[in-house]
Amino acid sequence: MKPSEVNNMLPFLLRRENVARYEDGVVVIGDRRKYPFEKSYVHCNDVESVAQAIEGMVTQGGGPSHASAYAMVMAARQCADQSAEGQLKTLDAARNRLVDTRPTNTAMARRLETIMEFIEMALKEGKNVEQTLLDWIEAFRDENYRRYAVMGELGASLMDDGDGILTMCFAETAFLLSLAMAKRDGKNIRVFTPETRPYLQGARLTAPSVHELGIPVQIIGDNMPGYILSQGKVQKYFTAADLVTLDGHVVNKIGTFQNAIAAHYHGVPYFVFAWPDKLKPDRASIEIEERDPAEMKSCRGVPTTDQAIDAYYPAFDITPPRLVAGVITIKGIHSAYDLARYSG
Amino acid sequence: MKPSEVNNMLPFLLRRENVARYEDGVVVIGDRRKYPFEKSYVHCNDVESVAQAIEGMVTQGGGPSHASAYAMVMAARQCADQSAEGQLKTLDAARNRLVDTRPTNTAMARRLETIMEFIEMALKEGKNVEQTLLDWIEAFRDENYRRYAVMGELGASLMDDGDGILTMCFAETAFLLSLAMAKRDGKNIRVFTPETRPYLQGARLTAPSVHELGIPVQIIGDNMPGYILSQGKVQKYFTAADLVTLDGHVVNKIGTFQNAIAAHYHGVPYFVFAWPDKLKPDRASIEIEERDPAEMKSCRGVPTTDQAIDAYYPAFDITPPRLVAGVITIKGIHSAYDLARYSG
Repeated sequence: MKPSEVNNMLPFLLRRENVARYEDGVVVIGDRRKYPFEKSYVHCNDVESVAQAIEGMVTQGGGPSHASAYAMVMAARQCADQSAEGQLKTLDAARNRLVDTRPTNTAMARRLETIMEFIEMALKEGKNVEQTLLDWIEAFRDENYRRYAVMGELGASLMDDGDGILTMCFAETAFLLSLAMAKRDGKNIRVFTPETRPYLQGARLTAPSVHELGIPVQIIGDNMPGYILSQGKVQKYFTAADLVTLDGHVVNKIGTFQNAIAAHYHGVPYFVFAWPDKLKPDRASIEIEERDPAEMKSCRGVPTTDQAIDAYYPAFDITPPRLVAGVITIKGIHSAYDLARYSG
Repeated sequence: MKPSEVNNMLPFLLRRENVARYEDGVVVIGDRRKYPFEKSYVHCNDVESVAQAIEGMVTQGGGPSHASAYAMVMAARQCADQSAEGQLKTLDAARNRLVDTRPTNTAMARRLETIMEFIEMALKEGKNVEQTLLDWIEAFRDENYRRYAVMGELGASLMDDGDGILTMCFAETAFLLSLAMAKRDGKNIRVFTPETRPYLQGARLTAPSVHELGIPVQIIGDNMPGYILSQGKVQKYFTAADLVTLDGHVVNKIGTFQNAIAAHYHGVPYFVFAWPDKLKPDRASIEIEERDPAEMKSCRGVPTTDQAIDAYYPAFDITPPRLVAGVITIKGIHSAYDLARYSG
């Protein structure tokens, strides 16, 4: 499938131009905090604004990789009149600021590492960094959409007619493509999406996106997957992952793990879309981001308790390989115990 | 312990007078929807108002039993000039309206059945139903507080110095007494309370009540117990129950079950405070209340998604006896497989 065909199968939020784009010196990021109440964008004029947008959850999941890549293009433009050495120093500082925004998802860090290597080469060759980097990023995104299509077909192959599908948080492109492709293949499926507190990605992002594909979807509480599983309503559990280690530990939005325990208890297989990280060998190499507890004490700006009470907000959890039925990469559906051969 | 001494150990919300009370023809119910933002009461002048208050979650858990009992006192006053037969008919209609408010928790239905028997006898003996019923209810509540003290001591005996305690929803008097008694006995404990969407009983009711006892407490998301357990922060899991069947199935707020699965996975025992219902032999006899899906699409009045999206809100779930380490009644800490001898 062509990248544009893939893009056309996707719901609004996951359209390439709505995730993030570069517009003549400005990074434009689709605002996932306001969706589905508003379809709006945050316009960033410097790296710090992009970093703060990522920290502030304007975009999340796969979004930061794209937003931060465009931030590097913008930074290259802004320092183009410096010496090559000066540009490299400025751009390395920009990279570090961006990497520091979210410690758990290492895809952004890996992407920015590659971008720094690209920049170094472009500077050596005396090229216009802004334009050559932008071209490279767009080609990279084209390639990504081809990969998503492969993963989407693999995901769709696991969905049977009549299946109830449980997910968690916002599993983004590969998952939404799987659903769209299963529907294209005439399979009737339905989706249960836990709301995903505190940011409600399940209620605000996943549910409207699945609904947009014309697939039945119900929002449930984060406290409900166990019961829904016990009712026999769920046949498969699918999520994305912010990180999968080489030894098969899946790091994803908090709640993924306890859903996997409940799915396993009920004999329901758990599949995860991921590109295992060759720099992350095992559980010990994972850093779990702990966010401001205050975020756990409100919901869309409204306080949920007395602010004197303490809270705790680890943003991700870790699912061990024994609870994972399959890891879906562009190369196939792998055992979580055999990922070293498929990492990138 | 005297009932008044027990009452003095309790946090604001669980004080006898703040759960519900009868004031000269008016039923006054502590408003759990507004706590901890406001300490306010709903004043009800007829049975329908009490029924609607229960349906609308003004009070929940153990509250409806008390509020509905006082509603019967109020109804008795309002129909006192009818014939005995007329009074009985009016009061039976009142009882039926109240029982219909919440189908899952059968404690209220059982209490109202006893009250109807009491009323029938009082009418035969030509007594003032309002006053004799009120006296009987207050004596019953006295007895309840003595029972809570027994269960509280049993719960406290299960808590060890240094324990992290996971709970769910608002486990009310026996649980809060257990915590207070464990603290009294010099045990350092800390509590993790999932917020309990959509009504946030964990964030709004449990956490401030535990905090009021001077015990460290952290609010977590309903998606976090599994991860917190994996961190080794939890040594015991305690909840109340809306219903326990004679064959050991625990019915409690949705989320209780998946927490129990996660606790079991991590080797953490689950204890439940309950008075098994002799009229409910098994899982098949349980009716799970499914509430308006719209309640799953807002949080404290603020929408959490596009209202065109479907949702699902089963209010309770069912934990099988194999996940229960002990059922705490006034008679001891029982195996969930031996409850028929301890039911009431």
